[in-house]
Amino acid sequence: MYVGDQWKLSWSTRAALEAETVAATFCSGHGRAYLDGLVAHGNKPVCTCNSCFTGPDCSQFIPHCPATADSGNPLFLEPFWMQHLASSALVVVGWHQMAYTYEDSTYVSKELEKLVRRLHETVGNAVTENRFIIFGAGSTQVLNAAVFALSPENTSSPARVVSSVPYYTLNKEQTEYFSSEKFEFEGDAYTWRNRSDGSSTNVIEFVTSPNNPDGQLKQAILHGLNVKTIYDRAYYWPHFTPIPASADEDVMVFTLSKLTGHAGTRLGWAVIKDEALFKRMMEHMRLNSMGVSKDAQLRAFRLLKTVLEEGTEIFDFAYRTMKSRWERLVRTISLSDRFSLPENNPQYCTFYSKVRQLSPAYGWLKCEREEDKDCFAVLKAANIIGREGHRYGAEDRHVRLSLVKTEDDFDILIERLNELISKEDGVRTFEE
Amino acid sequence: MYVGDQWKLSWSTRAALEAETVAATFCSGHGRAYLDGLVAHGNKPVCTCNSCFTGPDCSQFIPHCPATADSGNPLFLEPFWMQHLASSALVVVGWHQMAYTYEDSTYVSKELEKLVRRLHETVGNAVTENRFIIFGAGSTQVLNAAVFALSPENTSSPARVVSSVPYYTLNKEQTEYFSSEKFEFEGDAYTWRNRSDGSSTNVIEFVTSPNNPDGQLKQAILHGLNVKTIYDRAYYWPHFTPIPASADEDVMVFTLSKLTGHAGTRLGWAVIKDEALFKRMMEHMRLNSMGVSKDAQLRAFRLLKTVLEEGTEIFDFAYRTMKSRWERLVRTISLSDRFSLPENNPQYCTFYSKVRQLSPAYGWLKCEREEDKDCFAVLKAANIIGREGHRYGAEDRHVRLSLVKTEDDFDILIERLNELISKEDGVRTFEE
Repeated sequence: MYVGDQWKLSWSTRAALEAETVAATFCSGHGRAYLDGLVAHGNKPVCTCNSCFTGPDCSQFIPHCPATADSGNPLFLEPFWMQHLASSALVVVGWHQMAYTYEDSTYVSKELEKLVRRLHETVGNAVTENRFIIFGAGSTQVLNAAVFALSPENTSSPARVVSSVPYYTLNKEQTEYFSSEKFEFEGDAYTWRNRSDGSSTNVIEFVTSPNNPDGQLKQAILHGLNVKTIYDRAYYWPHFTPIPASADEDVMVFTLSKLTGHAGTRLGWAVIKDEALFKRMMEHMRLNSMGVSKDAQLRAFRLLKTVLEEGTEIFDFAYRTMKSRWERLVRTISLSDRFSLPENNPQYCTFYSKVRQLSPAYGWLKCEREEDKDCFAVLKAANIIGREGHRYGAEDRHVRLSLVKTEDDFDILIERLNELISKEDGVRTFEE
Repeated sequence: MYVGDQWKLSWSTRAALEAETVAATFCSGHGRAYLDGLVAHGNKPVCTCNSCFTGPDCSQFIPHCPATADSGNPLFLEPFWMQHLASSALVVVGWHQMAYTYEDSTYVSKELEKLVRRLHETVGNAVTENRFIIFGAGSTQVLNAAVFALSPENTSSPARVVSSVPYYTLNKEQTEYFSSEKFEFEGDAYTWRNRSDGSSTNVIEFVTSPNNPDGQLKQAILHGLNVKTIYDRAYYWPHFTPIPASADEDVMVFTLSKLTGHAGTRLGWAVIKDEALFKRMMEHMRLNSMGVSKDAQLRAFRLLKTVLEEGTEIFDFAYRTMKSRWERLVRTISLSDRFSLPENNPQYCTFYSKVRQLSPAYGWLKCEREEDKDCFAVLKAANIIGREGHRYGAEDRHVRLSLVKTEDDFDILIERLNELISKEDGVRTFEE
């Protein structure tokens, strides 16, 4: 309400006080307290600590705890949001958007859609003009919606879903789980290319580019009238890769998770050329979950508004962080004969107007010694938890190391790697 | 931050000001402005008007506009939240819950789970002690998770999914859409009961109780070792039905939508007895959408906290509203020989400790005249939009009328019904 000519806060005060109090909980820089976090006596949320830290204020380091580099939790972006508290805060009134749909009877917030288009235009990573945009519960749900919608109906022969090795684990797991007469998972796209019946079968190829796990700007392997391609562009942001050009594929999938770091919000989107396909994907969203959480869409709206208001700041922060992590990782691995990382050829980045290297979300580590066939086990013995190569359709000589977690996680990972590699050098020196 | 011994709001002020300003937008009581609503000049969100109202402040009534009684948008609860602004407001910090999982590595907020259990205990509508709870994007996603998880693996014969007529439309649509070697939709449970091969096949029966569309406390039709039952308990709250006892089935599905009215949040849950089933449903949530939006869970957390803080107030408000609507509907229909409503036998309600009638979310209207085989068309001619009986596996002599929308929607529905029925009387009087 107005008091004089000044707005005086009324209904939001209680909630604001509570949220600020919880957010101000001291967790030693190794944790944070959430409004809906576990509570202790007095119903006060307690600190959620980073891995390897414990105690009421997360100040105690747990010695010999494992470096967990498995999940892709993008908490490397948390400090950015901690530095932009006022501009990213969100206040929700109790009666906010209670209906299933928005005013235009769709499941898609038009204002969020506008922000997504503006963002792609600003970054120059995807063409969105004259394209349809659909939201889903993370890229996870959107990717599967695309597979369903691209599969032919009323056919006796299911579409074969492929991806070139190494591929994103979920492509396999999800496609197998939902497989039916419409589609089934067929494995490596390279293998399919050599199949004689290849040209007469409907094929759907996943192209994750930049790729998860190896960070490369992957290309489609299969082409032809009966081939549909789903481009997973989750990592096509300047923090992870040079942006050579604005992507302009038929179906491109993005996610808030790897852009702003808000994996928990579950908000992904697809940019789609064909209207019929768009409608089929919309129908999928209706039958799967009756649209997308409006609270997730509201949160994304607030966050993307902040991203756009701050110019290139989030990308500068995120690129700086990833670049520095890669420099540390490369320095460490370069001391070793036992491990290697993929080649990293510089390319021109239209966003930063300069030639630069990749700075992917994951390190796709290879164990080079003949006997180290199980690279995961080699690392595990050194108290490092990565993800096994076979999960990506590749050899277990490879391990994926997540580089997008908290700074604490990354520090511990580098420390453990250094320990492991220093022993290796020690042994070699000793033997020589 | 503290100034003296008082907390002075800092980072939340800007967002609070913005939210309060938008929420205070004048929409004549026939609409409301949303933070992420469509914007006009000056980037100010504009009013979203109730159906049949228009203009910048929703003050203009649109004459002859149709009464839309089709969707189940539970906006009858919006006034409750407008009356509880301070206790239901939510303030979210920019770095809130960015990870995929909570501190215990699950997709389920333990604090929200506690509130759900406390609520069921308070209302006495479901046993949750020693039960597992899983969240999903509305009951929509949870119902399908249950079908997948209850279907046998590695079988040549898919589970047959049935429901007794009239059944919830989505049970058919969703099951058919996702059907595979694991399960397929088989239609009416009554028909299946008489099948000779019935006892050797795996069957999954949906029991929506109270039922959508007809509001009855539906019972399972099929029983036996090879029969699994999914109880859709979306409407099992005191506003819609007497609560004869605490439900205690193996799989019970609930949703925020029909409890607090927040359909757009997409937050449903299942209460599950069997741990193995719970784990399979969790895996479904992972493969389908990598869990549930944490923003949806946070919103539900805030709303359920308010519900519990306010004692029985939300149920009193909602029951009062539904009871009054049913009294008006019954009064109107009782003047007619052309239309009828299902029987409404009173039962004892343990929540209100009294005998009372049903006050369902929908009116399951029947056209009684021999020639009125298409009841939807009869109503449409009178400018009333319901939903056709065949969508519920029933005859088109039936139409579902939604009674849970805004007061404006309901007023217009009653007005149109009165008009239609008064003509009927007129015609009858004229002919006599």
